[in-house]
Amino acid sequence: MKIVVDGMGGDNAPHEIVKGAVQAAASTNHLIILIGDEPQINKELEKYQYKKEQISVVHASEVISSDDPPVKAVRTKQDSSMVKGINMVKSGEADLFISAGNTGALMAAGLFILGRIQGIDRPAIASIFPILGKGGVTLLVDAGANSECKPNNLLEFANMGSIYMEKVMDIMNPTVGLVNIGTEETKGTTIIKAAYELLSKSSMRFVGNIEARDIPKGVCDVVVCDGFTGNIILKLSEGLAWTIFKLLKQKFTSGIVTKVGALLLSSKLKELKSEFDYSEYGGAPILGVKGALVKMHGSSNANAVKNTILKGIPYAENNVVQMIQNSVLELEEIIISE
Amino acid sequence: MKIVVDGMGGDNAPHEIVKGAVQAAASTNHLIILIGDEPQINKELEKYQYKKEQISVVHASEVISSDDPPVKAVRTKQDSSMVKGINMVKSGEADLFISAGNTGALMAAGLFILGRIQGIDRPAIASIFPILGKGGVTLLVDAGANSECKPNNLLEFANMGSIYMEKVMDIMNPTVGLVNIGTEETKGTTIIKAAYELLSKSSMRFVGNIEARDIPKGVCDVVVCDGFTGNIILKLSEGLAWTIFKLLKQKFTSGIVTKVGALLLSSKLKELKSEFDYSEYGGAPILGVKGALVKMHGSSNANAVKNTILKGIPYAENNVVQMIQNSVLELEEIIISE
Repeated sequence: MKIVVDGMGGDNAPHEIVKGAVQAAASTNHLIILIGDEPQINKELEKYQYKKEQISVVHASEVISSDDPPVKAVRTKQDSSMVKGINMVKSGEADLFISAGNTGALMAAGLFILGRIQGIDRPAIASIFPILGKGGVTLLVDAGANSECKPNNLLEFANMGSIYMEKVMDIMNPTVGLVNIGTEETKGTTIIKAAYELLSKSSMRFVGNIEARDIPKGVCDVVVCDGFTGNIILKLSEGLAWTIFKLLKQKFTSGIVTKVGALLLSSKLKELKSEFDYSEYGGAPILGVKGALVKMHGSSNANAVKNTILKGIPYAENNVVQMIQNSVLELEEIIISE
Repeated sequence: MKIVVDGMGGDNAPHEIVKGAVQAAASTNHLIILIGDEPQINKELEKYQYKKEQISVVHASEVISSDDPPVKAVRTKQDSSMVKGINMVKSGEADLFISAGNTGALMAAGLFILGRIQGIDRPAIASIFPILGKGGVTLLVDAGANSECKPNNLLEFANMGSIYMEKVMDIMNPTVGLVNIGTEETKGTTIIKAAYELLSKSSMRFVGNIEARDIPKGVCDVVVCDGFTGNIILKLSEGLAWTIFKLLKQKFTSGIVTKVGALLLSSKLKELKSEFDYSEYGGAPILGVKGALVKMHGSSNANAVKNTILKGIPYAENNVVQMIQNSVLELEEIIISE
């Protein structure tokens, strides 16, 4: 496997990206290709010891920044690390592309360069969500790519998410839940109700509507929603966890008795914090394009980069794109039968 | 002021309802009317000491349960505590109605019996949200009454929420934020974009789009969204807080050193928990109907009932319904000018 990592994407590029790539190289035999400004990347690489044959650098003279308008950036910055990296996946020079850069541009580049899998109307971003206290994960699809969705899009998200969980995360016959404002079949918008119908007819292990309160408890393996709702779920979880930890810290550092107590609990507090730490869980696969793309959090540190590379390998290796392609026929039958 | 409390609504009726009413009566001079099965309510009342002239009981022979289909229940159970209680608000025998019962039935009864405020297309449920660590609150409108909304509905929610925060919660010139997937004006669905336009033209203190991650941080006083999104925000917050506390408890009760640490922190942990405790913040006003209705959480305990009664008084007293009525003209001008 050849893994191309965007050396210029995200808030901490290139230093944390390069550092994470070096760390990943110590745990895998696959080839890691860092793409971006060669002098800058080489300067970072010089800081570390690693097997030279395992990390290579490909030069790209341009960078798509987080402020660039996605479509325009992809069209005009042809020699950017992102466009060039994805072109390597298209040409078969690489099997997986990973970036912490501009999400919209990554989606657009995936669509323009690789194209959609035939029969998939809308590719989606799938985000890994920790199930707190249980060690498992849930996959949230769509986590933000498509604000407005049709019922068949939600069916596609469920299908692609199920395949990803089975082939990449080793969860056999994963359960699928549809985010709604109540568990009853009659709840929700007209689009959600129609999606419920479609999902009921599929061969997926559909458990019905789920309420938002049950998502953190791990009520199902694949959580399906439109990208607007997915974005709300992702960001609210992030904001609430951040607020609670800040509050814990405030409370636990006032007064001497409290400080002693907090000291005795420090290892437990660290455990708790690591359960929330997105950098442990790897990146967010973009599902539905003809190639393996993974988006990392914009503020990814070396640990997040390392984990995204290592956890991304089975996405390319197990040929998820082909699996999705093969499954499309069943979806079309369901949609047409409506 | 006369406050009618549904003695039969919610999981803990009538005992916690009656207990909470007795507690509230100790802190206010207003008259509290408990409506429901008279023998049951009197039996509960006998347990307590209170000024007899301050609590009265009105008999209602029927109960709308949480499983009842809302519209049918309101149409057929004319002698239910809910229908009868709201009729008392309509006739002027009471100024405020509070219930922990079936939310859908409460909305339906509000619409059928009291009717909408003229010029308000869609009444909404407004939910009080704590700003953790800061002591303040945010009002979330709509928290679940309207899954699908038009742009003018979102404008109405913002307006009604602003009036409520100013007149009831004493927040002068409250800020209004529109829930979206990014802060840029160009983000979101066509409905959200159109609502952004309308809000920009209003005299409200509109701060623009807000992201879900900033809601718990108290980014604005009134958080505006459709009822689908509001339900997701409310229930995800509830579920995530519950999961984190469960995890804290698990972590802090394993091993002797940990237990000692947790003991030293116990007062701080209690403080933290009380910040999340919905029972401290009062109920959720239903805005847009011609009368003051407040919904309590279905599992409300006596403390929640007490706080909902006490915090509900200014809703009736400050004539919020009339204020909303007076403000409708400005909204109509904005909508027509589009």
